[in-house]
Amino acid sequence: MIEPAIAQCASTESPGERFARVRNWTDTLTAPLSAEDCCVQSMPDASPAKWHLGHTSWFFETFILERFEDGFRPFHDAFRVMFNSYYHAVGDRHPRPQRGMLTRPPLSFVREYRRNVDERIARLLASRGDEKGLQEDLLALLALGINHEQQHQELILTDIKHLLFMNPLKPAYHDAFSQSEQPTMPMAWHAFDGGVVSIGNSGRDFCFDNESPRHRVYLAPYRLASRLVTNREFLEFVRQGGYRDPKFWLSEGWDWVCANDLAHPHYWLEDERGWMEFSLAGLRPLDPGLPAIHLSYFEADAYARWSGARLPTEAEWEHAAAMPSSCGEFAEGKLFHPAAAKQHGLSQLFGDAWEWTQSAYAPYPGFRQPEGAIGEYNGKFMVNQYVLRGGSCATPADHARATYRNFFPAAARWQFSGIRLARDMENGTA
Amino acid sequence: MIEPAIAQCASTESPGERFARVRNWTDTLTAPLSAEDCCVQSMPDASPAKWHLGHTSWFFETFILERFEDGFRPFHDAFRVMFNSYYHAVGDRHPRPQRGMLTRPPLSFVREYRRNVDERIARLLASRGDEKGLQEDLLALLALGINHEQQHQELILTDIKHLLFMNPLKPAYHDAFSQSEQPTMPMAWHAFDGGVVSIGNSGRDFCFDNESPRHRVYLAPYRLASRLVTNREFLEFVRQGGYRDPKFWLSEGWDWVCANDLAHPHYWLEDERGWMEFSLAGLRPLDPGLPAIHLSYFEADAYARWSGARLPTEAEWEHAAAMPSSCGEFAEGKLFHPAAAKQHGLSQLFGDAWEWTQSAYAPYPGFRQPEGAIGEYNGKFMVNQYVLRGGSCATPADHARATYRNFFPAAARWQFSGIRLARDMENGTA
Amino acid sequence: MIEPAIAQCASTESPGERFARVRNWTDTLTAPLSAEDCCVQSMPDASPAKWHLGHTSWFFETFILERFEDGFRPFHDAFRVMFNSYYHAVGDRHPRPQRGMLTRPPLSFVREYRRNVDERIARLLASRGDEKGLQEDLLALLALGINHEQQHQELILTDIKHLLFMNPLKPAYHDAFSQSEQPTMPMAWHAFDGGVVSIGNSGRDFCFDNESPRHRVYLAPYRLASRLVTNREFLEFVRQGGYRDPKFWLSEGWDWVCANDLAHPHYWLEDERGWMEFSLAGLRPLDPGLPAIHLSYFEADAYARWSGARLPTEAEWEHAAAMPSSCGEFAEGKLFHPAAAKQHGLSQLFGDAWEWTQSAYAPYPGFRQPEGAIGEYNGKFMVNQYVLRGGSCATPADHARATYRNFFPAAARWQFSGIRLARDMENGTA
Amino acid sequence: MIEPAIAQCASTESPGERFARVRNWTDTLTAPLSAEDCCVQSMPDASPAKWHLGHTSWFFETFILERFEDGFRPFHDAFRVMFNSYYHAVGDRHPRPQRGMLTRPPLSFVREYRRNVDERIARLLASRGDEKGLQEDLLALLALGINHEQQHQELILTDIKHLLFMNPLKPAYHDAFSQSEQPTMPMAWHAFDGGVVSIGNSGRDFCFDNESPRHRVYLAPYRLASRLVTNREFLEFVRQGGYRDPKFWLSEGWDWVCANDLAHPHYWLEDERGWMEFSLAGLRPLDPGLPAIHLSYFEADAYARWSGARLPTEAEWEHAAAMPSSCGEFAEGKLFHPAAAKQHGLSQLFGDAWEWTQSAYAPYPGFRQPEGAIGEYNGKFMVNQYVLRGGSCATPADHARATYRNFFPAAARWQFSGIRLARDMENGTA
Repeated sequence: MIEPAIAQCASTESPGERFARVRNWTDTLTAPLSAEDCCVQSMPDASPAKWHLGHTSWFFETFILERFEDGFRPFHDAFRVMFNSYYHAVGDRHPRPQRGMLTRPPLSFVREYRRNVDERIARLLASRGDEKGLQEDLLALLALGINHEQQHQELILTDIKHLLFMNPLKPAYHDAFSQSEQPTMPMAWHAFDGGVVSIGNSGRDFCFDNESPRHRVYLAPYRLASRLVTNREFLEFVRQGGYRDPKFWLSEGWDWVCANDLAHPHYWLEDERGWMEFSLAGLRPLDPGLPAIHLSYFEADAYARWSGARLPTEAEWEHAAAMPSSCGEFAEGKLFHPAAAKQHGLSQLFGDAWEWTQSAYAPYPGFRQPEGAIGEYNGKFMVNQYVLRGGSCATPADHARATYRNFFPAAARWQFSGIRLARDMENGTA
Repeated sequence: MIEPAIAQCASTESPGERFARVRNWTDTLTAPLSAEDCCVQSMPDASPAKWHLGHTSWFFETFILERFEDGFRPFHDAFRVMFNSYYHAVGDRHPRPQRGMLTRPPLSFVREYRRNVDERIARLLASRGDEKGLQEDLLALLALGINHEQQHQELILTDIKHLLFMNPLKPAYHDAFSQSEQPTMPMAWHAFDGGVVSIGNSGRDFCFDNESPRHRVYLAPYRLASRLVTNREFLEFVRQGGYRDPKFWLSEGWDWVCANDLAHPHYWLEDERGWMEFSLAGLRPLDPGLPAIHLSYFEADAYARWSGARLPTEAEWEHAAAMPSSCGEFAEGKLFHPAAAKQHGLSQLFGDAWEWTQSAYAPYPGFRQPEGAIGEYNGKFMVNQYVLRGGSCATPADHARATYRNFFPAAARWQFSGIRLARDMENGTA
Repeated sequence: MIEPAIAQCASTESPGERFARVRNWTDTLTAPLSAEDCCVQSMPDASPAKWHLGHTSWFFETFILERFEDGFRPFHDAFRVMFNSYYHAVGDRHPRPQRGMLTRPPLSFVREYRRNVDERIARLLASRGDEKGLQEDLLALLALGINHEQQHQELILTDIKHLLFMNPLKPAYHDAFSQSEQPTMPMAWHAFDGGVVSIGNSGRDFCFDNESPRHRVYLAPYRLASRLVTNREFLEFVRQGGYRDPKFWLSEGWDWVCANDLAHPHYWLEDERGWMEFSLAGLRPLDPGLPAIHLSYFEADAYARWSGARLPTEAEWEHAAAMPSSCGEFAEGKLFHPAAAKQHGLSQLFGDAWEWTQSAYAPYPGFRQPEGAIGEYNGKFMVNQYVLRGGSCATPADHARATYRNFFPAAARWQFSGIRLARDMENGTA
Repeated sequence: MIEPAIAQCASTESPGERFARVRNWTDTLTAPLSAEDCCVQSMPDASPAKWHLGHTSWFFETFILERFEDGFRPFHDAFRVMFNSYYHAVGDRHPRPQRGMLTRPPLSFVREYRRNVDERIARLLASRGDEKGLQEDLLALLALGINHEQQHQELILTDIKHLLFMNPLKPAYHDAFSQSEQPTMPMAWHAFDGGVVSIGNSGRDFCFDNESPRHRVYLAPYRLASRLVTNREFLEFVRQGGYRDPKFWLSEGWDWVCANDLAHPHYWLEDERGWMEFSLAGLRPLDPGLPAIHLSYFEADAYARWSGARLPTEAEWEHAAAMPSSCGEFAEGKLFHPAAAKQHGLSQLFGDAWEWTQSAYAPYPGFRQPEGAIGEYNGKFMVNQYVLRGGSCATPADHARATYRNFFPAAARWQFSGIRLARDMENGTA
């Protein structure tokens, strides 16, 4: 188990060392993939690994080298458009649903692009890294680029998982796998008094714009479940007809269930061996003790309703996450699958699976969108999405923090997303 | 100008008197419409007036008569399905997009259904209205049915407006019209200190379930605009390319603009006479002094961003609405179009146009969904919708209140929805 | 039973008398319908009866009055666009899927439009009907307009049937109904030698442009079934899994079955009473002796394949239809439902149900599209449609003729379309 | 220029030699492609080259080895489903739109599959190739498999062209290119008397089932253009507003133009250099003397109408193709782009570009669908498609013949499809 304390450990790294370490991790993640695996796009929401490799390099080239490098010349003229994700202020963008059409340039050339950008960034840091004034902007953008790369590292895993699952061979990405140890930790409820508390990031260390400013909110007393909902518990919901009764579902969620004829989580299937779950290690019997994952907001909300609880708000979650707690599985463990809760007390808040909150993704009071293209990073997505907290088994450990706000539309299922339940306090009891 | 104080005046009415008055108002609203006008459905979101007439009667028949009437027999067996909107717990529902297929029963027969239900409700109230115990439930359901009818009264107007606008003749519903008086009130900013405040309905008078419980929230200091954004102001946004520059828009909003090739509000059109606006009184020159209406959340948000402001949260709005303020146009004025702001000070909070807030429609802390079919009234819609406040020129005055939460998806444009701007407090100034 | 000989009888009518008679028949057909029934559009392919009433009058106004009437002024300026179906050369067109939005003008006003056009045409014929030269064009256009009106008379019936079936009350258009007399005529096979034969219309009497020129085709010897396929026979196909086995279907037809989850003809349904069929007289037990109708080309082709036969070509059909044969039910019988075959010998070629041929709708050799807007009448639809022959129980008897080419896309089911089987000659036997 | 006489030359080959030669040609065609190029599917109509490589081997394995090989065992269990295109009688099929998801097995493994099948077929032919009785079926299926492989060879080229064009780099498949020699041959008209003629294949040599039986048809006198329509001529249509005026288009074609906002052929684009055309050799200036290609039936028909001509029927084309004529470019020339007409007289009938006919794809009189899965090869597609004749620059020369019937839906543009005009005979002149 890797502690988020790694963030502190890691803080002895120089910016350049951190850049190199994080960039290398991307190579590690894509090493098991063939050029074919890296090229194909399985749905508009997912991107090919090759595109992720190019785009993360484009980010450093466009936002750092173009501004700070003497005699800047782009590695390839067409890449400005090809690897621009959604930054209107940068210019045209290759259409998102056609990212899988890019059989050229070949993967090898995109890897060359990465090496080129890595060298130029290293040179830049070496030559100008301690110019005053310049340093502040440059290092802030470098930190942003590194965190951006880490987000795409997680997406590389979720996107390749989605692709491999569409293959009738159900191929594995790797051999590792997690296994629960019996018996499952019982679910306990942790009480919080609430009141006026502060959430959000004060910005001393790096954070995304959407995490700030730190601000006060009022919380009524509440309780949080000690761990994530397990496959055993979610299977009970399935077996008791959870996907067949509209009374557990938000109206739009029920329409979604019916339109897509859904009866279980995305990576589950039932064959002659019983319930199976597809993981990055291939198809395996559903392990009842592991957290239930790849759930949409609709499914998380329906499960909570069925079980007589509710999803937490993001403020409730963040307030609780300030307490000491044990961490779950992070990407560095190389399982890329959540582990079972192993300790009493509030566990799995960090790692294992992103936790849906009932909070719509919205600007914090006083939120200011940065000027220029960078302002498009987060702010313009603040509608019709829901906040997830805590990080997952595909998140780098030093990328997770208590104030981190992940967000996806309510129907998204291809992320490592699970359920932590919450409850109102009743009769003053905890 | 009608004060919401009408709610208090009206409180001298008996429940039966109020029932009769509100039911009659529905007849008044549909009187100018032909059987053809009442039958057609212009889009899946809108319903034919005939269906509204049937459904509101079905509501009383199903939730009151079926439970309280001795020897209950339904007026028509098929109506249980035909006029059920979305209550799974009641049973099957006629598909929403096919409400316009119901050329039979004829309008006259649905009016007969209304009269029948009216008489049976009146008889029930007369005979059993003061049985103890029974009374509480019955009168609560009666109040719910009356408020439900009032919601559909507003929808009758918005839906018929949508239909008539699709007609190349651009026919008028009636002759009345509002006109602004020059000059427009200047926009002023009203400051609020914030802190821990309470919002939500304590439930002493009738309220919908989604308005309760009353609860505490923390508000940072903020400012609210004194009046709604006008057509003149919104036209400036249009003219300066507001619909052509993605930087003002939420990402999903920009996709919506492009996919639908939008360049102005829904009921505006430009012809050889200049900018025209379609109203229930037909097509008229766009009146610069009147509030801009029929705006989606996306448009309201883009306008706010363009103007350097933001939309208020629903808590900010409700806190402000506790102050004394002048009201705008309500349905009883029979203009069915907003009027210009006429007074200095915070105005138009109630009436004229629903005001988009930046708050996603979500359960209040401690919200409990009622048992049974009635529990489906509001709770299951709490996802991917945004809260609007204050009521409009199509809202009955005694239906508006400070705690009222209206809600629509971000792309909805056919409601009487406008913009009140908000701002954070800067440098401690007000 | 009405003989197509009525065409000859009718030939003693003056053009004006024929005009008046056919126009009146439209009124007869729409008399049982309410204004609501006449206003609604049940699908984009179907049009409201009110629109049919307006469009057929528009046809006479636009193509005759506008050209021949002194001091022509349109009845209503907006009608030129509102009632234009698909004539680009005339100008703009109200969008087809929005024909059901036209609650204004009211039905009464469209009827007034009809009367106005009727009077002006009568006046024109009286005053100028025997001017030389003018007469040829005028009378040709009058005949075209009359035949056009008759086509819409059939569509009024098929479109209202489609609408009423969408109503959960399954209301009837009228009380009449047909009933088969036991026993069903056995199906016999009639042999034809083929060779070089002529088909197509020589144009001595009125015909549509697509029926000409008369031209030679070579036919191999073939056989035609003596009567239409019955409900009993088609039900056997249903029961033996015809809708569940792709081997009977064209590939595109099978995709259509799967995508729409089809298991039987459009107006059939199975309830606790057994198989029922919706007709213009309402829902009735499926009558095994009556012809199977409302079949798509895909269904007709699949049935033929299942039964070891095939559909005829239009040339085979037309060559056979030159023989004397008994007629089936036409519109004048006011059943608007086919009758059972009543005679030995080749029967039902005319009336009862349109018969799908395997012939794609294409121009005859030497086909010339007329100049101007009238040229858009037929020619531009000659792609991806299939020819039907013979007329139906909703066709006016004097509108049917051996050379008549009706045409619909392969998935169309709302017409009175049935199956006559054909076979190649084997071993010289007949 | 390669003569179709190659078919005769080739006839000295043994079946095994022909099998080996044709299989090798597939390898030659895919040699310039990377594993990434071979994996991606650019649209549902197109397939990845890797899938084509697998499917053509599957065809031999399923229809020959499974039946004739002693101790048959499939190369890989999953391939029976993965590489089944549309044969219901064989069993399940991997969904067509997901052929591009198959990043596994890797290209190298599919090439191994090909080698394995090649060896087993060779062994089978060696060991049992002259068993009596068996031979007839085996050699017939072998010929079918070889012709099937040749069809997919053409698709490999058209599908990879479609994919590469979607790439913003507009990469080339190879370096070769064709160039017209000035001046363009003038277009002349060749007259044919018509009468009762025979078309279709008598079946002495291999043909597809849809080409038989040979049968008589009657043809009116007609004229055929001496060569294909050129880019210069088609550009004139574009410049004179051909894509902006509905009067040239079939109604469904015009809807298609508007819905897709089309203004020129698929692989044309206009940039600062003028009109450019994408070819398998990359983007090059539009060569006015080369045939206009990649046209849909709608475009071919509209051009013909605009020019006062029409498309030929397939019978007219086949009757003319019995005359001696010079051939155009075939696949063996390795240009994969048509060449200019180089000779007076009827030219380009074979090779260069498939020629749209106005004939809907339909069964010939007396057509019998073979029993079993092989019967699904052609017959079930005989609806809503149009016949093309003659072969193209991507067709192997020994695959073209006068009776060959290619077919595609009216909107298909990604094939090498061009226009040969036809005309009716006027006034007895030729």
